[in-house]
Amino acid sequence: MGDVTAQLAAIVGEANLLTGEAISDDYAHDEALSSPPQKPAYVAKPASAEEVAELLKAASTASVPVTARGSGSGLSAAARPLADGLVISFERMNAVLEIDVENHVAVVQPGVTLAELDERAAAAGLTYPVYPGELSATIGGTVGTNAGGMRAVKYGVTRNNVLGLQAVLPTGEIIRTGGRTSKVSTGYDLTQLIVGSEGTLALATEVIVKLHPRLPHGATVLAPFDDLDQVMAVVPKIVASGLAPHILEYIDNMTMAAMVYNEKLELGVPDAIRERSQAYLLVALENSDTGRLGEDVETLGGLLDELGALEVYVLEGGSARKLVEAREKAFWSAKAAGADDVVDVVVPRSAMPVFLAKARELALAAGGGVIGCGHAGDGNVHLAVFCKDPEARTNLLTGVFAYAMELGGAISGEHGLGRTKAKYYLKLEDPAKVELLRRIKSGFDPAGILNPGVLFG
Amino acid sequence: MGDVTAQLAAIVGEANLLTGEAISDDYAHDEALSSPPQKPAYVAKPASAEEVAELLKAASTASVPVTARGSGSGLSAAARPLADGLVISFERMNAVLEIDVENHVAVVQPGVTLAELDERAAAAGLTYPVYPGELSATIGGTVGTNAGGMRAVKYGVTRNNVLGLQAVLPTGEIIRTGGRTSKVSTGYDLTQLIVGSEGTLALATEVIVKLHPRLPHGATVLAPFDDLDQVMAVVPKIVASGLAPHILEYIDNMTMAAMVYNEKLELGVPDAIRERSQAYLLVALENSDTGRLGEDVETLGGLLDELGALEVYVLEGGSARKLVEAREKAFWSAKAAGADDVVDVVVPRSAMPVFLAKARELALAAGGGVIGCGHAGDGNVHLAVFCKDPEARTNLLTGVFAYAMELGGAISGEHGLGRTKAKYYLKLEDPAKVELLRRIKSGFDPAGILNPGVLFG
Ligand SMILES: Cc1cc2nc3c(=O)[nH]c(=O)nc-3n(C[C@H](O)[C@H](O)[C@H](O)COP(=O)(O)OP(=O)(O)OC[C@H]3O[C@@H](n4cnc5c(N)ncnc54)[C@H](O)[C@@H]3O)c2cc1C
Ligand SMILES: Cc1cc2nc3c(=O)[nH]c(=O)nc-3n(C[C@H](O)[C@H](O)[C@H](O)COP(=O)(O)OP(=O)(O)OC[C@H]3O[C@@H](n4cnc5c(N)ncnc54)[C@H](O)[C@@H]3O)c2cc1C
Repeated sequence: MGDVTAQLAAIVGEANLLTGEAISDDYAHDEALSSPPQKPAYVAKPASAEEVAELLKAASTASVPVTARGSGSGLSAAARPLADGLVISFERMNAVLEIDVENHVAVVQPGVTLAELDERAAAAGLTYPVYPGELSATIGGTVGTNAGGMRAVKYGVTRNNVLGLQAVLPTGEIIRTGGRTSKVSTGYDLTQLIVGSEGTLALATEVIVKLHPRLPHGATVLAPFDDLDQVMAVVPKIVASGLAPHILEYIDNMTMAAMVYNEKLELGVPDAIRERSQAYLLVALENSDTGRLGEDVETLGGLLDELGALEVYVLEGGSARKLVEAREKAFWSAKAAGADDVVDVVVPRSAMPVFLAKARELALAAGGGVIGCGHAGDGNVHLAVFCKDPEARTNLLTGVFAYAMELGGAISGEHGLGRTKAKYYLKLEDPAKVELLRRIKSGFDPAGILNPGVLFG
Repeated sequence: MGDVTAQLAAIVGEANLLTGEAISDDYAHDEALSSPPQKPAYVAKPASAEEVAELLKAASTASVPVTARGSGSGLSAAARPLADGLVISFERMNAVLEIDVENHVAVVQPGVTLAELDERAAAAGLTYPVYPGELSATIGGTVGTNAGGMRAVKYGVTRNNVLGLQAVLPTGEIIRTGGRTSKVSTGYDLTQLIVGSEGTLALATEVIVKLHPRLPHGATVLAPFDDLDQVMAVVPKIVASGLAPHILEYIDNMTMAAMVYNEKLELGVPDAIRERSQAYLLVALENSDTGRLGEDVETLGGLLDELGALEVYVLEGGSARKLVEAREKAFWSAKAAGADDVVDVVVPRSAMPVFLAKARELALAAGGGVIGCGHAGDGNVHLAVFCKDPEARTNLLTGVFAYAMELGGAISGEHGLGRTKAKYYLKLEDPAKVELLRRIKSGFDPAGILNPGVLFG
């Protein structure tokens, strides 16, 4: 152990290697609700791809399991280390290397946060549109989980916005995948294979992402409906309308109540409507032209009216921003309310009503409850699960995930499997497919040092 | 051999297995210019995933190399079989299984052609926007090559439009990947790994694709410029404008001349301008609203004017269609003109001018020439290469590809490596990366029966 410590310290420098008491509690967990914290044996903070390569070689030789860490804001415990493990924290590799305006591309180190990157892009009139609820998340972490967020309905998730990587293989080789181009048909797409692999295949040390024109004008519309089924029926119509909203969220009344309460929102929804409405639709539009934006808001309003909205509120700048922020923080509201888990099942858009009905039914039968909101345009349902008994909860979630898969969906749309959902995956997924994933994994990581326990249990 | 024949016939039925003279020349080649035809030993036409699985098991046992075939319109000889090989032709698996309007998704068998799918989507007011020059290409073949085409600048290439697959592994297992949802973070993305793998990892037996709203109004604009550099400088400006063209092509004057001649185009470009112009930009816009389309065409015209266009022609329906079709057929013009190869290098958009200058310089030095056109919005340069001497041509292409890679691009943007570009890839790519691809390959295909010679030489 002392030997390993000395080796690791020689690679990153004494000051950048933590062991024992020097390791703060932060490194012991991410934001997953259902995973106990675990401090690692080592935390190393490399400054370059070469240092990452040396760390991985040393870990390989000494059979030390390695967990990469961005900001630790993940929701599936994929950044939670093992007791004898090494955390590679990318906090020092946090430079925006280039904003390439002509190619609409940025080249960044993995420790850059989403907030920083978007700020830098904004200065060039561009945007990096991956907006999960937590903007302190790092680019490396979002590559790990394939993060989505509210704007994915228009701009896609992380995988749709990552063009290339520099990555270090667990065997120590530094490779480059993809490039500064939006298309490549030259060998297997390693970029897409590494995105979403939750730190189990390779560690990203540089990321090339796509930037988009930043549209200056936006409007946010809130529409209460009698029930969730109505909201769900409206979603495909809005998608088909060509209005191309960049936010298209449903929020159930319990979640809205928690958000209003926690964030002290003033939405101007009269009591009569609030009491009647079981679900809300939140839609945001953007445009480079205010005239067109106005027309589109009009069209949207008409559509919502026609499809049964109890009212259509075009929110003012301040309250719109607050509502969107409150939606981003819905996780904290759920946590504060005592939720036992948060899941982000994805199903085909049109299957959301049957899925939600079934999830509620299963929760009730388990003596618990589910409430939530979600990226309705993507069929991505975020449920706060209330069910204290661990066994009942496991059964409940097994039933919920199994039904989502039966409908043509998947266990997670954007949070990943990590440590907390792996057992469900292994139970419910086709064994032939899991075997194939294992063979891919060992093609990258023959010694199995990258994030053991994640994804494969 | 007789044994294998009997086995294969038992799987697909006598009528659907061809051997010897019954195999037509068609199965011996695709449209690659630089690969000699080769008839296979067997051609099987399965009707289901189960039959494909049985074929692969039999081929595995008998060590028969297998080449999947769609329409054979590929340009890199990836569908060219081996002499002792089995071609699995998907011509009988050609049903559109579902157009799912609510989810904007189609589920199709691999033998469906792009033309058929788009026609079926059109009936529902939707479109499948993958439009390579050859609409007789099949969905399976486009999954194989990760085909692009003119509309990729707006809608992305095949990988951006494929949501899920049913695929048969060379070991005979039938798996499902992805689903009817636009996002999944549940295990490695096998869909994206199989797309673009040129029939070397698994065979797609069902494909779930994304459909898009079909915008009813379109306009096509042609702008001649003094030289190519000017055209290239305009491209990022149009991309940044937010006009979101669905076609953004450059065409050099030699290629335009060949197109005008071969397709008898009447573009209304006066001789004086034609003689002066060295390069053209072709831009197409679409909208659901004619008013907005008109405004956008106006804006585009102003932009082109300002940026040095010699003229701006808004083409009438008929001549616009003919020009776009001629562009689609540019490959045939190049072939008719005696081109020795056609390549589709991709580089960062902004690097197109230096790349083209270097390619011309290298061609001149090799005693040959390059002319072309390309998906300028994607940095995807299609070059017809004229250079008779095989050795000089190999050197020329090595130089061209090496320079593209140096610029942050790749050998192929959408045609793939197949048999014709594999040798360059193996020479120029990082060996550590090629080794990793080989390990992935053997994770899927331990016996190495799927398309040997393709990609890995
Ligand atoms: C309030 C709140 C709201 C959220 N809302 C959303 C949402 O709407 N959508 C959404 O998708 N997520 C959401 N999340 C989850 C979270 O923000 C994302 O999972 C994010 O991607 C994690 O980034 P991170 O830097 O914190 O990564 P971490 O949690 O540190 O790590 C995540 C994974 O990435 C791996 N990893 C880290 N760095 C690298 C690297 N350089 N190379 C390879 N792998 C690496 C880790 O090993 C781990 O497997 C939310 C979280 C919170 C707390
Ligand atoms: C005039 C012309 C213009 C063209 N323009 C373009 C263009 O602009 N952009 C572009 O990208 N391409 C273009 N192409 C190339 C061609 O159309 C594409 O490569 C297309 O993807 C090939 O489809 P196919 O059905 O003909 O496939 P094939 O040529 O039969 O096969 C292509 C590859 O896919 C594999 N394959 C076939 N079926 C399956 C399956 N079910 N599962 C797994 N693998 C499979 C094959 O083994 C092979 O590796 C053009 C071709 C021509 C002739």
